[in-house]
Amino acid sequence: MQALVLERKGELAIRDIDLPRDVGPNDVRIAIHTVGVCGSDVHYYTHGAIGSFVVRDPMVLGHEAAGTVTEIGAEVKTLKVGDRVCMEPGVPNMASRASKLGIYNVDPDVRFWATPPIHGVLTAEVVHPAAFTYKLPDNVSFAEGAMIEPFAVGMQAASRAGIAPGDVAVVIGCGPIGIMTAIAALAGGCSRVIISDLSAPKLAIAGQYAGITSVNITEASLAETVADATDGWGADIVFEASGSPRAYQGIFDLLRPGGTLVLVGLPVEPVAFDIPAAIFKEAHIETVFRYANNFDRAVNLIASGKVDLKPLITDTYAFADSIAAFERAAKGLAEDVKLQIRLGD
Amino acid sequence: MQALVLERKGELAIRDIDLPRDVGPNDVRIAIHTVGVCGSDVHYYTHGAIGSFVVRDPMVLGHEAAGTVTEIGAEVKTLKVGDRVCMEPGVPNMASRASKLGIYNVDPDVRFWATPPIHGVLTAEVVHPAAFTYKLPDNVSFAEGAMIEPFAVGMQAASRAGIAPGDVAVVIGCGPIGIMTAIAALAGGCSRVIISDLSAPKLAIAGQYAGITSVNITEASLAETVADATDGWGADIVFEASGSPRAYQGIFDLLRPGGTLVLVGLPVEPVAFDIPAAIFKEAHIETVFRYANNFDRAVNLIASGKVDLKPLITDTYAFADSIAAFERAAKGLAEDVKLQIRLGD
Amino acid sequence: MQALVLERKGELAIRDIDLPRDVGPNDVRIAIHTVGVCGSDVHYYTHGAIGSFVVRDPMVLGHEAAGTVTEIGAEVKTLKVGDRVCMEPGVPNMASRASKLGIYNVDPDVRFWATPPIHGVLTAEVVHPAAFTYKLPDNVSFAEGAMIEPFAVGMQAASRAGIAPGDVAVVIGCGPIGIMTAIAALAGGCSRVIISDLSAPKLAIAGQYAGITSVNITEASLAETVADATDGWGADIVFEASGSPRAYQGIFDLLRPGGTLVLVGLPVEPVAFDIPAAIFKEAHIETVFRYANNFDRAVNLIASGKVDLKPLITDTYAFADSIAAFERAAKGLAEDVKLQIRLGD
Amino acid sequence: MQALVLERKGELAIRDIDLPRDVGPNDVRIAIHTVGVCGSDVHYYTHGAIGSFVVRDPMVLGHEAAGTVTEIGAEVKTLKVGDRVCMEPGVPNMASRASKLGIYNVDPDVRFWATPPIHGVLTAEVVHPAAFTYKLPDNVSFAEGAMIEPFAVGMQAASRAGIAPGDVAVVIGCGPIGIMTAIAALAGGCSRVIISDLSAPKLAIAGQYAGITSVNITEASLAETVADATDGWGADIVFEASGSPRAYQGIFDLLRPGGTLVLVGLPVEPVAFDIPAAIFKEAHIETVFRYANNFDRAVNLIASGKVDLKPLITDTYAFADSIAAFERAAKGLAEDVKLQIRLGD
Repeated sequence: MQALVLERKGELAIRDIDLPRDVGPNDVRIAIHTVGVCGSDVHYYTHGAIGSFVVRDPMVLGHEAAGTVTEIGAEVKTLKVGDRVCMEPGVPNMASRASKLGIYNVDPDVRFWATPPIHGVLTAEVVHPAAFTYKLPDNVSFAEGAMIEPFAVGMQAASRAGIAPGDVAVVIGCGPIGIMTAIAALAGGCSRVIISDLSAPKLAIAGQYAGITSVNITEASLAETVADATDGWGADIVFEASGSPRAYQGIFDLLRPGGTLVLVGLPVEPVAFDIPAAIFKEAHIETVFRYANNFDRAVNLIASGKVDLKPLITDTYAFADSIAAFERAAKGLAEDVKLQIRLGD
Repeated sequence: MQALVLERKGELAIRDIDLPRDVGPNDVRIAIHTVGVCGSDVHYYTHGAIGSFVVRDPMVLGHEAAGTVTEIGAEVKTLKVGDRVCMEPGVPNMASRASKLGIYNVDPDVRFWATPPIHGVLTAEVVHPAAFTYKLPDNVSFAEGAMIEPFAVGMQAASRAGIAPGDVAVVIGCGPIGIMTAIAALAGGCSRVIISDLSAPKLAIAGQYAGITSVNITEASLAETVADATDGWGADIVFEASGSPRAYQGIFDLLRPGGTLVLVGLPVEPVAFDIPAAIFKEAHIETVFRYANNFDRAVNLIASGKVDLKPLITDTYAFADSIAAFERAAKGLAEDVKLQIRLGD
Repeated sequence: MQALVLERKGELAIRDIDLPRDVGPNDVRIAIHTVGVCGSDVHYYTHGAIGSFVVRDPMVLGHEAAGTVTEIGAEVKTLKVGDRVCMEPGVPNMASRASKLGIYNVDPDVRFWATPPIHGVLTAEVVHPAAFTYKLPDNVSFAEGAMIEPFAVGMQAASRAGIAPGDVAVVIGCGPIGIMTAIAALAGGCSRVIISDLSAPKLAIAGQYAGITSVNITEASLAETVADATDGWGADIVFEASGSPRAYQGIFDLLRPGGTLVLVGLPVEPVAFDIPAAIFKEAHIETVFRYANNFDRAVNLIASGKVDLKPLITDTYAFADSIAAFERAAKGLAEDVKLQIRLGD
Repeated sequence: MQALVLERKGELAIRDIDLPRDVGPNDVRIAIHTVGVCGSDVHYYTHGAIGSFVVRDPMVLGHEAAGTVTEIGAEVKTLKVGDRVCMEPGVPNMASRASKLGIYNVDPDVRFWATPPIHGVLTAEVVHPAAFTYKLPDNVSFAEGAMIEPFAVGMQAASRAGIAPGDVAVVIGCGPIGIMTAIAALAGGCSRVIISDLSAPKLAIAGQYAGITSVNITEASLAETVADATDGWGADIVFEASGSPRAYQGIFDLLRPGGTLVLVGLPVEPVAFDIPAAIFKEAHIETVFRYANNFDRAVNLIASGKVDLKPLITDTYAFADSIAAFERAAKGLAEDVKLQIRLGD
């Protein structure tokens, strides 16, 4: 089967590779149609590793995918051949202690696409558990289906935030995940989201959404913007989605007493954290690791028209051009939110 | 001061009446601009009582109000003369045990406008605590400001429901409160709301909102509609807003396992409640009594454009015609959602 | 294999029966030591059915069990041969929508011991998933281990109640589940539990526990006792564990504003439910269906000495006398809380 | 009125001082009986300031107090002359935005005893709002009553932790607040609490409580102790009560996936915080600022016998010897948990 294979750090190839093909009783086979390029795919390409996950053998990339069911296992009742679907890329041990609690995303044994040594899905087809395969309604395209995975991170952030209807939120960091978080927070009940960054182009894209206010912190003070918007009370929720240690300076000044800080971004180094500032506000702090139990709700929001992710798809490549897509993604252009690769017709 | 006075059951008069005028240090004086007519106002007019609250002396009606601050008490820092505002009509004892817990709406000593023996605000001005007076942004009209009070009931329902982003909800009963609940649930994070009733005109009004599906139960099965919309899984949340005992028949069939039923409507008689049906789904059940801590969030949602209540204002009367407004409201026309009375210019 | 078989309604036999014996990769084989007699076992014996679950074929009884692991499957890492264990009797489909959410107890496909057509464990050994088998520390006896299952219902009630440390609770109904609930509520953070019933002997047993106050409602008013204990404010939590429709009369009078009612008991008929009384208190209502994710916490509480269930074990029978145990249980003696049957040495 | 006055940093005097004496309609006058010496009182004595709170004028010390009501205001209904009481030392503006939400402890305008410029209560009597004065049952002594204030911090920590019955907790830091937190966590539902420190004497005192395991980290590894106690899964809850930046090294290794970290201690400097470690566990983090709404529940736990704080009272001084009490407290002896000063008979 042809696939986009990361041979080793810095070296991609489109070539044949042997991949698991057996459909178990609770599995489905899916013909892949569209795959998004994620920052983690790119990081494996450019660095060969993320933390302790090191690419030691050739690995197929790609984990943001949509396609069509072509075969179902003997026990599968929730899907049928021909269903258009998107897939949750992490498969936990469902009998683990974490999974029993409903937090299967933090099961230490989760197997996640395109995370060494597990292959990704930039290839013609994949076999996947039906339980982690979600049907797309007719009015949701494959391109949108392949956006569900990154959007699910924003959904997890919005879910963990415990939004009360009408809350005001701040999102620090206007990369793809920051934008997804802002959109999910709005759809999830916020009246208004203020998003900040240094980079103008993505702020412009985010600012096109009704309800999102962009703040370029090279030009304006985020703290003052938040104070103005809330009569000095502070935001109900602050999402940290930049992963920058600098974001933690004065972060609790943005928050109202009793508000919630949601940590999404991953700083590489330990950050300087002002514990008394958190305590004096008696802040709640939640953290977000991938997602659990929200692909179905994400699909619902797109199908209902409340969420439109299409403006975030910057460009689409044919599978034959997928190395070019990765080379572009590796440049990290300020204008690019999401690049996608199309394998299907 | 001229006011709309309920002299006794069935008898209204526009006449002078003595009302408290002293502005305490934490109070503001407000020139009333617009007042909505609520079902409870009408019920006092037509029945002279609601439960144990009996009209024994002449009482000014009206509790859904917006206006302009004309004077502030010595300690007031959050408002200034000229601010356009709406008001929360219940004033609790803020030092009570319930208020200390943040649930001041269930303080037994709350004093609520137009609930005997407390006068309402269908009159030129009122003195009210600044803490229960909320500033309206420039883009929120007085008419919208006077809709905040009934919308706050829907907001309370949506808040108590604990909506996760993208949840699917059902609202049983398409009266004013049912519609407000559906709108609040959508704004509060639901992807879709299915609302049901027997009465076609209000269903048509609700159905104009994107995301709301109307079901006329004289023509279609609510249970089947919900099953179709959720692949047989059930709704995440069911709001009971009809107050009809019949709504409780099979109500848990609408709900997914582990879902939440929110009780908003007030049936006069005890209802037949199927405890095992609730238990087999391990349902959460929440109840809604007026509102607490959500006028500010309601204002935010209207100001941001996420919520538009204007289509629910059926007609507006001059203060001089307010008895006519009540006579029309007493007829309970199927087409009428909200009638308002304008006192200001 | 010898087992206690319910041949049909009213007819028990100790006889050989073929039972599944294969140990799958994630299973363990357990030599059964002690099995408690549950009201549901007795009900199948005396009535041949519970609701829609009808005994159509001979079925082994018993689902409250402890024993010793004698064999482990190839993938099992959490247990080893010789471990003393207790078992959660319901096995869900862990890939189901409910299980993914962590509420596997409400998975419609759960297979539960001694619930037709699934056999129970009043027999020499059983094969069970390791994920639902819990190790007993050395200081927890098999007899206590076999009490974990009914105690887990009380634990579920206490967990769902959302107890704040020091809360005051009421338990209506002093049967085995009511007592288990009272004990779990105390261990789970309540300062005091008031338990009520008509039957003096079980109230005496409950009243031996420090922190539990027994109220015989043939002699004293529960409402007055609660009012006295809470200065008229009401209990923070009321557990309904009697299953009696009469318990619902005035039940919200027992509750403080904003308090929580937890429904554990299963009335056969619909009950008359006072919706306005619930709403005026803005009560939270939770329901309890069996249990999920609390066998481990139950074991911890017994091992730490915080919970002592031994006073609730009224009598123990040898397996050869198990029909006599069921005949006694069927009499429903007021003094009997729990009868157990011992199969091991 | 004679009082213990902090004239300036390092200088205490017992002398007459003018204090507010008027009993407002919602106030009570209380004859002080017992006052505990708190670390913050001592810090003002030794340093003259805590953060931005600087002692600029002579200030009466003491905020952990119990006494007897000697006069009640015209509107007071919850207390009567002769009631034995303890008092919550922070008085918020109950009409503030925070107070309306039930989080009056984070009202920026709270006035707190013995926090400049507000006088404390090491004097014969005090006037205080009835709403923040709590009746002591007959079986709770004045000495215990004066322990409620520091215990309330532990109660707040236990409340914020969201303990599920049977959870296993860790408390880092075995000072007075750490011990109070451990006791509250046990009473609040934990099956077991592991407490750690470097100082042997206080660990010995904590270890006397059933359910508390002491770990001296100069002799044993806390991480290994927790891993052993939880089969490598981690604690459900970790309370940081040391205020030491070193406590944050590896703190998430102690926690189970999806567990909760509760921040109680106040490090002076920013700490190095490992965000990815928090995120990979998808930890919840709560913070604790003083307390709200738990004095009543604290009193209940002591009255019911579930909580015994008497072993924590190291020594008691007469008011005439109160300067000696402060001099001893300033030494910070390892054996001393709580010193109290008795003013009443």
